[in-house]
Amino acid sequence: MSNQDLPLSVASPSCEATPRTRPPMSGETAAELAVLFKALADPVRLRLLSAIASRAGGEACVCDLSAGIDVTQPTISHHLKVLREAGLLTSERRASWVYYRVVPHALARLSEVLAIEAGAVTA
Amino acid sequence: MSNQDLPLSVASPSCEATPRTRPPMSGETAAELAVLFKALADPVRLRLLSAIASRAGGEACVCDLSAGIDVTQPTISHHLKVLREAGLLTSERRASWVYYRVVPHALARLSEVLAIEAGAVTA
Repeated sequence: MSNQDLPLSVASPSCEATPRTRPPMSGETAAELAVLFKALADPVRLRLLSAIASRAGGEACVCDLSAGIDVTQPTISHHLKVLREAGLLTSERRASWVYYRVVPHALARLSEVLAIEAGAVTA
Repeated sequence: MSNQDLPLSVASPSCEATPRTRPPMSGETAAELAVLFKALADPVRLRLLSAIASRAGGEACVCDLSAGIDVTQPTISHHLKVLREAGLLTSERRASWVYYRVVPHALARLSEVLAIEAGAVTA
């Protein structure tokens, strides 16, 4: 056997491969969901979202949202905008006030994805 | 009525207040969950997590994780570390290989929180 015939690398002892039970998340889905998780990756945004979601109809007036959250109004507005742009909230002006509403299907979709990854439900 | 008795501000027309149906998320919980959502807020991390979760037993050898994910091995290692430090993965060395396993209860907790905020389940 000449040098030319030597393998270029020596294989490591093989690992205990575990078979796939379902296809993993696609790159496209991951890119889309990462944007939503990023919107949730802030304590103030989570509290604002929950403050809205915990009101009847999943809707709250902007004037009710700052209670107990110790940040300035412009900061609240910024965080609400991030949640809105991610598609987790919608807003509507009625008379003098802006009302925010959660988008249940967006939150439910994330919830379901995590339940699948947790193995709690079948994909 | 003297000037001293004048109210300091004039109230705006009141909004249509919506009653709370449950207590909103606490600041402490929001701070804790934001760390987990931040760990999920990256497409490569989501794909790695899903690549592990989609294997039998929610476990995969590190050597099986780069398939189809076009990033370098150090980048993969960095993202796995972020997921591990957030408590979403555990790792174990067996012989020459490191195996990663999802932490189902951590993912299930996030799933449940989102289902509550979506109004799908009762807190």
